[in-house]
Amino acid sequence: MPQVTVNLAERSYPIDIGSGWLADSTALAERLTPHIRGQQVAIISNKTVANIYLAAVLEALADYQVDVFSMRDGEEYKSIETYAQALDFLLQHRHNRSTCLIALGGGVVGDLCGFVAATLQRGVDFIQIPTTLLAQVDSSVGGKTAVNHPVGKNLIGAFHQPVAVCIDTDALATLPPREYAAGLAEVVKYGVITDADFFGWLESNADLLARRDPEALQYAIATSCRIKAEVVAADEREGGRRAILNYGHTFGHAIEKLCGYGVWLHGEAVAIGMVMAAHLSTAHTGLPAAQVVRIEKLLEKLHLPTQWTGRDELQVDAATLLSVMGMDKKAVDGRVRFILAADLGQVDVVDDVAPETIEALWLKLTQAEWA
Amino acid sequence: MPQVTVNLAERSYPIDIGSGWLADSTALAERLTPHIRGQQVAIISNKTVANIYLAAVLEALADYQVDVFSMRDGEEYKSIETYAQALDFLLQHRHNRSTCLIALGGGVVGDLCGFVAATLQRGVDFIQIPTTLLAQVDSSVGGKTAVNHPVGKNLIGAFHQPVAVCIDTDALATLPPREYAAGLAEVVKYGVITDADFFGWLESNADLLARRDPEALQYAIATSCRIKAEVVAADEREGGRRAILNYGHTFGHAIEKLCGYGVWLHGEAVAIGMVMAAHLSTAHTGLPAAQVVRIEKLLEKLHLPTQWTGRDELQVDAATLLSVMGMDKKAVDGRVRFILAADLGQVDVVDDVAPETIEALWLKLTQAEWA
Repeated sequence: MPQVTVNLAERSYPIDIGSGWLADSTALAERLTPHIRGQQVAIISNKTVANIYLAAVLEALADYQVDVFSMRDGEEYKSIETYAQALDFLLQHRHNRSTCLIALGGGVVGDLCGFVAATLQRGVDFIQIPTTLLAQVDSSVGGKTAVNHPVGKNLIGAFHQPVAVCIDTDALATLPPREYAAGLAEVVKYGVITDADFFGWLESNADLLARRDPEALQYAIATSCRIKAEVVAADEREGGRRAILNYGHTFGHAIEKLCGYGVWLHGEAVAIGMVMAAHLSTAHTGLPAAQVVRIEKLLEKLHLPTQWTGRDELQVDAATLLSVMGMDKKAVDGRVRFILAADLGQVDVVDDVAPETIEALWLKLTQAEWA
Repeated sequence: MPQVTVNLAERSYPIDIGSGWLADSTALAERLTPHIRGQQVAIISNKTVANIYLAAVLEALADYQVDVFSMRDGEEYKSIETYAQALDFLLQHRHNRSTCLIALGGGVVGDLCGFVAATLQRGVDFIQIPTTLLAQVDSSVGGKTAVNHPVGKNLIGAFHQPVAVCIDTDALATLPPREYAAGLAEVVKYGVITDADFFGWLESNADLLARRDPEALQYAIATSCRIKAEVVAADEREGGRRAILNYGHTFGHAIEKLCGYGVWLHGEAVAIGMVMAAHLSTAHTGLPAAQVVRIEKLLEKLHLPTQWTGRDELQVDAATLLSVMGMDKKAVDGRVRFILAADLGQVDVVDDVAPETIEALWLKLTQAEWA
């Protein structure tokens, strides 16, 4: 069973990657109880996930005071209202400083539970049990917690590291195909930003991954977590290098906003954004055109979109794109950071991309598409 | 002008103590602008304080985008509702990661503003300008931020250090006498916990302090901040030693709860709690009885209460006291920490005080009082 450590001095923690333990109360108890300091546990989950796994978790933790806060599923419930409700629930059930929260679910549950843990009594322990691929390779690792605000996503939150991340690849068996593919977009990202060999491995094993082969998945998840852990260990609070994890995200976020949240899944928007960033990289940091093609081909093999296809519903001009990206003249402190590649596995943070360059790229990509 | 540094590696910050600068826009600009990184500033204040100082602050920061969030005054507005309103306000005014918040007011404003700063975009800069004595010597220093919850005070919050604390002793001129005296309770506390010489100085200068002599005040505030800074630097997140700052607070909090918040000011309850802790110390850690008398006398000279005087309204039996302190049998993980003194300036954290000891102390103190 692979284990990855996130090295952050006294805040270090393990990421365990296995399969089959989450439905087995004995295996669950062995995995969870070493990380629980006190007598209280609170599980934050949603109905879909709780229906499958909660009974086993409750059996595993029969010796503790366990309270369960079930939140509604969906990005719109990752809100300050749900956050306040969760705190009410925990405080009314008298959870004290030595309680341990458990996030049992996808990224929405993990981000919200993490923010609650960050701020209940100025910080309590929490364990991440991510049940989607996106959460397993990305949001559960690294300590970014947050809720959304009508003005934008993840605008209210804190850095707060879990005490452990426990991953069961079997949880992915029931994931809808689009959601599964969206998680793979972040896996591809790790290859692009730091590890050309891993990118090559993904190319060779794309078919196995596309059909959720357990062994291939374990390797891909462990490698993704290892890469993220290394980046986070070097820059916990995103002062600099950690920003490379946002490869594809500057464009991806703009696409999500332009199309309306929910039209594209986050990972799908990131896939399109990674292709756009690759094109920008050929112009700006000399990424060979052949590598752009490899990125596009790999994403396609994993059933991910690589092109802006909003043309019928929404013809966006470059000015609108720049405005959404905060590169218009009205933006305050308006330098936008792009993560650009010089080659596969070699990226840098670049903040001197001219609006005109984005404009030209946009025309080129959309004209090709609309041709 | 005294300056104290809180040494916390990359989170270190200065505490400037002066007088007369807060009403002077030129002096204000000199003091504030070196700590502001970006182009945006948001001031969180209340009407009373804003009426006196806001005009000068706005003039000093004329070159920035400045937005002002005015909250209502009073502990009941240090709530998650006000917190959410402040975040709405800041996000609607597009404050980004490089904004700087300024807390202009007492402890309520400082704690709430600090928590907003801790969680807006996962943490932005903030400057504390405390305008009450309690805030100047206690709550503005050390990075504890929080809001209250119906279940208890300060139950939701974060550790988040300011980038600077700027203190003007002139702000204390208009403070109501009870509130001023309540702040002095925390000053006395610093002498008791770490510095017998400072305690002696307070005894010699009690009259000057009671009539708000500016020089005596500057020395008392600077020394208090220095002691708090040293304790915080050694234990930022209250893993151990920092708990000594709670001398008098275990009893103080119980008194506040028993009488109802607002009957005693926090500092008044702490004064009574310090006397109770001193009596407990004679029994438990050998504090000489003469030192208990010195503590009582100094508090009296500073116009602070030293005795539980709730007998007419509220005759509390020992069982109720123990329950409020979390020492009853129903309490989870029910060890209660007391800070007890072996001598003036020498305290330790003690968590093995038996409920029976508290019961006996309570009988002794209340019988003496009710005699």
